[in-house]
Amino acid sequence: MSKTRLEAFSDGVVAILITIMVLELKVPHGGDVEALRPLLPVFLTYVLSYVFIGIYWNNHHHMLHMVEHVSGGILWANLHLLFWLSLIPFVTGWMGENHFAALPTAVYGAVLWASAIAFTLLRNAIVRHQGPHSKLRAALGSDRKSLVSLACYTSAIPLAFVSTWAAHAIFVFVAALWLVPDRRIETQLGH
Amino acid sequence: MSKTRLEAFSDGVVAILITIMVLELKVPHGGDVEALRPLLPVFLTYVLSYVFIGIYWNNHHHMLHMVEHVSGGILWANLHLLFWLSLIPFVTGWMGENHFAALPTAVYGAVLWASAIAFTLLRNAIVRHQGPHSKLRAALGSDRKSLVSLACYTSAIPLAFVSTWAAHAIFVFVAALWLVPDRRIETQLGH
Amino acid sequence: MSKTRLEAFSDGVVAILITIMVLELKVPHGGDVEALRPLLPVFLTYVLSYVFIGIYWNNHHHMLHMVEHVSGGILWANLHLLFWLSLIPFVTGWMGENHFAALPTAVYGAVLWASAIAFTLLRNAIVRHQGPHSKLRAALGSDRKSLVSLACYTSAIPLAFVSTWAAHAIFVFVAALWLVPDRRIETQLGH
Amino acid sequence: MSKTRLEAFSDGVVAILITIMVLELKVPHGGDVEALRPLLPVFLTYVLSYVFIGIYWNNHHHMLHMVEHVSGGILWANLHLLFWLSLIPFVTGWMGENHFAALPTAVYGAVLWASAIAFTLLRNAIVRHQGPHSKLRAALGSDRKSLVSLACYTSAIPLAFVSTWAAHAIFVFVAALWLVPDRRIETQLGH
Repeated sequence: MSKTRLEAFSDGVVAILITIMVLELKVPHGGDVEALRPLLPVFLTYVLSYVFIGIYWNNHHHMLHMVEHVSGGILWANLHLLFWLSLIPFVTGWMGENHFAALPTAVYGAVLWASAIAFTLLRNAIVRHQGPHSKLRAALGSDRKSLVSLACYTSAIPLAFVSTWAAHAIFVFVAALWLVPDRRIETQLGH
Repeated sequence: MSKTRLEAFSDGVVAILITIMVLELKVPHGGDVEALRPLLPVFLTYVLSYVFIGIYWNNHHHMLHMVEHVSGGILWANLHLLFWLSLIPFVTGWMGENHFAALPTAVYGAVLWASAIAFTLLRNAIVRHQGPHSKLRAALGSDRKSLVSLACYTSAIPLAFVSTWAAHAIFVFVAALWLVPDRRIETQLGH
Repeated sequence: MSKTRLEAFSDGVVAILITIMVLELKVPHGGDVEALRPLLPVFLTYVLSYVFIGIYWNNHHHMLHMVEHVSGGILWANLHLLFWLSLIPFVTGWMGENHFAALPTAVYGAVLWASAIAFTLLRNAIVRHQGPHSKLRAALGSDRKSLVSLACYTSAIPLAFVSTWAAHAIFVFVAALWLVPDRRIETQLGH
Repeated sequence: MSKTRLEAFSDGVVAILITIMVLELKVPHGGDVEALRPLLPVFLTYVLSYVFIGIYWNNHHHMLHMVEHVSGGILWANLHLLFWLSLIPFVTGWMGENHFAALPTAVYGAVLWASAIAFTLLRNAIVRHQGPHSKLRAALGSDRKSLVSLACYTSAIPLAFVSTWAAHAIFVFVAALWLVPDRRIETQLGH
C-alpha cells in the first residue's frame, strides 16, 4: 500500500488538533485589557502545544519521507500516535485553565511521554517493515535526541509535583531541542 | 473518475470525527484527581469509538486500495457510510454522559450496525462497478468477519436492555476481531 | 495552475461543514427516549443539509473532473461558493432549534439559493477559462436541472411565510432531483 | 522533500480556520428578525476575516506554485504563518462580540500585521532556498502591494484608538487591494 493516505489522514488530524486548541481561547465578553488577562496562561499553553504538535508534524514529515510502502501494522502504529496527540488539546486546556497546577502539568508531561513512545513505536514498525537495509535506520544513527527527550519527559512528570516551573522549563527545553530541524535525515537525503 | 478525491474527502471526514470526539472530554475546572473522575466513562467511550473509527478507516483504506475508478453510485454509497460514522461522536458522548445507560448503549450499537451495513453496501457497489472480474470480490472470499460483526451488533442492541455490560463486552470483542489487520486483502496483494 | 489544491481545499472545507453540523446535535443529559425527542427536528434538518452538502460535493467532483487548469478567478469563484456553503450549518441549526419556523426556513432557502447562484458562477468561470471548446459546456447542454432548482429555491423563500411545510416539501424535492447522479457528465465521460 | 504535504497541511489548517469562524455565529434561540440583529457585527467580521483568509490561501497557492522543493526551514516558516492565521478566528470573534471596540480592533490589526510579516518571512525562506536563480524572486519584482499592506496595518493599529471606523476602512481597503489576483505571478507563468 502507498503512503499517500496515511500522510493525508495524519495531516488532517494534526491540522484539526492545532486549530481545536485555539477554541480553548474563549472569546471574552469585555473589550479591554482586563478581559484578556485571564487568557494569558491559556495562550502560553497554546503556544507551547502548538510548537510540540508542529515538531511532531515536522518529524513525521521527515520520517515518512524515507518510507515507500506501508503495512497494516504501520497504519495502526500511526493511529496510536495520533491517539496520544489527540489528547494534547485536552491536557493543554486543563493546564491553562488551572494556571499550571501540579497534576495537570504532570498529566501534560505524561501525554507528551506517551506520544514520544508512540512515535518510537511507529519508527520501529517502519524500520522492521523496511527490513535489514532500512533507509530510515541508517539515517537515524544513535538517535540521542529521542532518548534525551524521553528522559526529560520521564523526569518532568514527578518533578511537576515538586516545582511546576521546573517541569515547564523541561518542556521548553525539549521543544527548543527539536525546533532545530533533524539534520541527520536532511543530510542523508543530500538536502 | 479517479478515486483520489473520494479518498481525500473520506480522510478529512474521518480525521474530523476522531478529533471532534475529543471535544466531549470537557476541560474540568478543578486541577485535582477528583475533577478527572467524572471524565472516566467519557474517556473510555472515546477510546472505544476511536478504535472503531480507526477500524473503519483502516478497512476503507484496504478496500479502496483495490479500486481504480469510482462511479456516482460509489460516491453516494461512501457518503452514506460517512453519514453513519458522523453520528458516532454524538452517540459516544451520549453513552459516556449517561454512564453506559441501557438506551444510549442500544443506540450506540444501532449506529455501529448501520455503519456496518453501509460499509457492506459500499463494498457491493464497488464489486458491481468492477464487474465479473472484480479484484475486490476475489480478495474478500466468504467474508466471515463481516457476518460475525453484523450478528454481534444485531444481538447487542436488544441485549443492552438486559445487561449493558454484556453489550459492551460484544463491542470490545468486535473491535478486537478487526484490530487484527485484514490478512485476506494483504495476502492477495502479496504484502 | 493545477486543480489539485482547489480540490483538496474544497474537500477539507466540505468535510468540516458536514461534521460541524453534527455538533448541533447536543448530547442530552437524560438517557431515555424523552431526552432524544427534542433532538428530532435538529436531526431531520441535519439529514436534509447533509444531503444538500453531499450533492454539492458530488456535483463539484463531477464538474472539476472536466477541468485541467484553474485561474485566479476560478479560485475566488470557488471560495465564494464555499462561503455560502459555510453558512449552511448555521441556518440548519437555526431552523432545527426553532422547529421549522417561517423566517429560519426562508433564510435556509435563501442560503441554498445563494449557493446555487455561486455554483453557477463557478461553472461559468470555468467555461470562460476553457474557452470556445470547453468540455464542460459541451457536457452541460441545456442544464434544465439547475434552472429548475433555482426556480424552486426562489419560490420556497416567500412560500416559507405562507406554509413552512410547502417550503420543506420543495427542499426535499430538489434534494431528490439531484440525488440522481448527473448522467449528462457521466455519459460524456463514457462511464 | 516535496511540497505536497506542506500544501495539504496548510490547506487543512486554513479550511478549518475558515469553518471554525462560522461557529462564532451562535444559533439564536428566537426565530424572528430581532434574534438575528445582534449577530450582524459578528457576521460582518466573519465576512471580513473570510476574505482575509481567502487572500492568504490564494497567495499561498500562487507562491507555492513556484516552489519545487521545501526545506526544514520552509516547513517552520509555514507553521509560523499558520500560527498567526490560527489567531484570526479568536480576534474576529472578540471584535464582533464587542461591536468593533478600540482594543479588539487594534489587536485584530496586530494579528493581520504579524500574519503579513510571517508571509514575508516564508517568502524569503523560499527565495533563499531557491538560490540566486529563484523563480519566485524574479516574479515578485518590487512587491509594492505587500509593502503598502504592511504600512496600512502598521497605521491601523494606533488609529483604532482614535477612530475604529478609520481602522476598519483600512482593513477593507487592503482586502480590496488583494482581491485582485496577483497578476505578477500569473503573468510570469504565462496564464
